[in-house]
This record gives sequence, structure tokens and C-alpha cells, in this order.
Amino acid sequence: MKIAKVYVTLRESVVDPEGTAAKEALHKMGYNEVQNARFGRLIELELDGSAEDVEARVDAMCKDLLINRVIEDYRFDIEEA
Amino acid sequence: MKIAKVYVTLRESVVDPEGTAAKEALHKMGYNEVQNARFGRLIELELDGSAEDVEARVDAMCKDLLINRVIEDYRFDIEEA
Repeated sequence: MKIAKVYVTLRESVVDPEGTAAKEALHKMGYNEVQNARFGRLIELELDGSAEDVEARVDAMCKDLLINRVIEDYRFDIEEA
Repeated sequence: MKIAKVYVTLRESVVDPEGTAAKEALHKMGYNEVQNARFGRLIELELDGSAEDVEARVDAMCKDLLINRVIEDYRFDIEEA
């Protein structure tokens, strides 16, 4: 069994209203050291060990379905579970 | 400047309909090695260097605002930017 962890972040040029709201809320709560907040996604896939080319397969899943490449960047790690 | 990366996952006992839908869609597309898919969140906070106790402060931000501890678990790393 393998675990693929896909880290998805909004591209720098994309406005992140959720992050902006969180930053403003944190400031109101006294966490003034927060300069910026960005919200992304974390996708964990459990994969059975039968497949070859796990990295290429996960990359294809990201491109085919999981990631909106117009507004998101991604990277992933694959770990043995 | 420091960057805190907060990795937020749904607790094991919490149903994840987005993950289930992704798994089913991946199977339909031929990615049959996917045993399970879980969706979480990735929060990146840029922090100015003035604050002391960065770890304790970020943990407090998570507990006070960022995380729904009823259904979510979290961990975080702090990196120098």
C-alpha cells in the first residue's frame, strides 16, 4: 500500500478571499504577525501496490481530475504505508 | 519571515463525500489502484519575524480560528522563508 499526498496551492496571481478573510480575522484576534494567509487543498490517496509507475499515474490523476490547473499548482509525495 | 504550513485532515470517523466522489470518478477513468481518497486543507501563513513562541502562536491560531476540531485534525511545520 502506498499513500500519495497531493499538496494543492492557488497560483500566486489568483485572489484568495478565504485567505484574506482568515488574515483579517486573525488580526482582529491579536495575531498581528500574520502577513498573509493562503488556503489550499491536501488530497490523500491510498493506492494498492499493484500499479507500476506510481508517480506517473498520480501525476496523471492530478491532471485528469484532481487539480484545476488554471488556478492551482500542485506537488505530491508518495510514501509507503 | 517565517512560513507556517498547516496540514488539515478530516478525522478518520468523519465521512468525506468529496473523497468518495473523487475515488469513484478515478475508478471510472481507469485508475483502479485507488483504494481511498480523502480531502483536507492546506493553510499557509506568512509570519513576520517579530513574534516569539511562533509554534505556540500558530497552534493557538489553529485552535482559535483555523481548525474545526470537532471534525478535523491538524499538524504544522514552520519554515524560514
